[in-house]
Amino acid sequence: MREVAVVGVGMTRFGLSQKTQVEMFAEAATDAVNASNLRLKDIQALYVGNADGNVEEGQAVMAPMCAADLGLSGLPATTFQGACSSGTLAIINAFVWVGSGIFDIVLAGGTERQRTMSTPLATRMMGSGVHSKYETPTGLSFPGIFAMMAHLYAQKYGIPLSELKEAMARVSFKAHKWGCINPKAQFFGKEVTMQQIRESAMVASPLQVYDCCPISDGAAAAVVTTKEIARRLTDKPVQIIGVGQGSSGGVCTQKDITRIPAREMSAKRAYAMAGIGPADVDVCELHDCFTIAEIVASEGLGFFEPGDGWKAVVRGDTDIGGEKPINPSGGIKAKGHPVGATGAAQVYEIVNQLRGECGNRQVEGAKIGMTDTMGGSFASIAHALLKRGW
Amino acid sequence: MREVAVVGVGMTRFGLSQKTQVEMFAEAATDAVNASNLRLKDIQALYVGNADGNVEEGQAVMAPMCAADLGLSGLPATTFQGACSSGTLAIINAFVWVGSGIFDIVLAGGTERQRTMSTPLATRMMGSGVHSKYETPTGLSFPGIFAMMAHLYAQKYGIPLSELKEAMARVSFKAHKWGCINPKAQFFGKEVTMQQIRESAMVASPLQVYDCCPISDGAAAAVVTTKEIARRLTDKPVQIIGVGQGSSGGVCTQKDITRIPAREMSAKRAYAMAGIGPADVDVCELHDCFTIAEIVASEGLGFFEPGDGWKAVVRGDTDIGGEKPINPSGGIKAKGHPVGATGAAQVYEIVNQLRGECGNRQVEGAKIGMTDTMGGSFASIAHALLKRGW
Repeated sequence: MREVAVVGVGMTRFGLSQKTQVEMFAEAATDAVNASNLRLKDIQALYVGNADGNVEEGQAVMAPMCAADLGLSGLPATTFQGACSSGTLAIINAFVWVGSGIFDIVLAGGTERQRTMSTPLATRMMGSGVHSKYETPTGLSFPGIFAMMAHLYAQKYGIPLSELKEAMARVSFKAHKWGCINPKAQFFGKEVTMQQIRESAMVASPLQVYDCCPISDGAAAAVVTTKEIARRLTDKPVQIIGVGQGSSGGVCTQKDITRIPAREMSAKRAYAMAGIGPADVDVCELHDCFTIAEIVASEGLGFFEPGDGWKAVVRGDTDIGGEKPINPSGGIKAKGHPVGATGAAQVYEIVNQLRGECGNRQVEGAKIGMTDTMGGSFASIAHALLKRGW
Repeated sequence: MREVAVVGVGMTRFGLSQKTQVEMFAEAATDAVNASNLRLKDIQALYVGNADGNVEEGQAVMAPMCAADLGLSGLPATTFQGACSSGTLAIINAFVWVGSGIFDIVLAGGTERQRTMSTPLATRMMGSGVHSKYETPTGLSFPGIFAMMAHLYAQKYGIPLSELKEAMARVSFKAHKWGCINPKAQFFGKEVTMQQIRESAMVASPLQVYDCCPISDGAAAAVVTTKEIARRLTDKPVQIIGVGQGSSGGVCTQKDITRIPAREMSAKRAYAMAGIGPADVDVCELHDCFTIAEIVASEGLGFFEPGDGWKAVVRGDTDIGGEKPINPSGGIKAKGHPVGATGAAQVYEIVNQLRGECGNRQVEGAKIGMTDTMGGSFASIAHALLKRGW
């Protein structure tokens, strides 16, 4: 395997878009290519994460359509379907196709447009991310799954639910604090107080509105290339030093959803490839589709002991300036969650953090960053580890 | 890149299944693993092509669900969405992940279950394979697209339509002749005469029922590994010597649909990687979703000059025993077309042909075989070149 780098990233603002998924991807991709000091004609292949374009817009074969819209018709163009992890799958596959020596410069990312759909249709579509034979018939939706996770977490570690809810509210508050000043975030410019969070409507007890990520439109992209080419293009290359992937058959196959073995296995693979451990990670964008999900993920990645993640939030360890800054972009909670794009947007944030270009949201001195996405009911989990320079 | 081989293949019978897509894949995969003299626990990652499981069964994240059903929960499991080319994308990605050195033994294939759907719903779902912004609003469906292809082919090369139709009927007759004796084929045991073909109902002029492939359920899989491991497992390894991929933005972006640049570029990439040309291919499974598609593909792959493919059919060149045997399995036309599985089923046939295990359908002495799949309205095209031994 050759060494592989990201040389440029781009993303649309997340939120409500009048553009199609193809057009949003073209916007993000063009920004990524320009930021890489390349031209579109330099791209040799296209990898696009997209979960449900066939349902949302009657558009399958997303990657070929994106290639054509960019004037790159003819190029190899592959679409990855891994629910909320789709964008990460596109990027880790770009990593291996470049690393293998087959391609030198690949455009990878993701796109999704979900706000075109009514809530019942969106709920049904999201529901295809669970086990269709054993979970769908129960009527369990994602808020229900993560509500169970919160109850089980509180019970397992003997935490009064009111205390856990306060920690979850702080996850939300942190997300909105940084999302509010991230111009790409769905909730950019929207200040949210602890009182608003505490008083928001109940969705699935104990999850309230501010414990849940929004439905979003958006796209993000990255240019992936070799070390040699990266050196010629930029003095701020970001190396991909490890990737990992794990799977499960959904909630119905889990013994204890306060731990997710697929995540732990995937993270272990990524750390092993990179030759590092959790302590080496300076900044992480992880899958906070619900506030409790951030707490559980922060433990699954090895940042905190099982049962300690909620305390770390309360201590401020996961805030910018803390010991282990998590989701300085505002995360899925405040940045938004166009599912196929989410993994690529995490890479967008980490690359900018490692380059020191995040302004008031900057994690000072960050050298190693991590992304974590989880698709479906814990079905598809993927990780990328990135490092500043060489 | 390390050298890569297929050591075992498996497939369900194509047709109507009571099993889910996950269960069909598990059947094909188990057969492939057993045929490889391996155990399921030897598999390190899973790559599954699936076009529309989220619509067909409310099941997205297909690969993780397949992994769990096989008792392989936890493994990296990636789903590829390339419409009818999905299964080929899974296999060529297995090729690169093994070639790169990251994994040693990967299970790759595809699955699709489409006969659960009513015709209007199936038509709508299939329609997501075209360009949703420019083609869908025209009402153009796949039979319409390939009917246009037949008319344009006849016009371009000055062929009386009745003569072209006779050549197309012979494509169908050949497909059913071999599908009739292929136990895995949807139309196994069904003899079809030229008279039946000529007298079948009109679908989209000039395409009649016997010019069109059926709607199908099915799955197919292959075990992909390194040369070294293959040598230990089997005395009949089949090497993957080249892969290719190409894309387009659909019919609306094509100047002349009697030639498909995406296919020609993809095939060129595959031939270049393998260091061979069309003349070296002894047997080919190509994308005959409609009879005219077989003729156009046979030219696009370089087997015949543009405008000569229909004559080759009439001469018998594309039959078993002819100069360039095409679709000895019965092809998509008679074997069936569960879209996500089709590319993997082509690899299944080619591997068996190169091993000399096809009985009455055997292409004698075949050393090099090719697969060709086309997804959407020419949006995603992929190729694999396989070679007997080393």
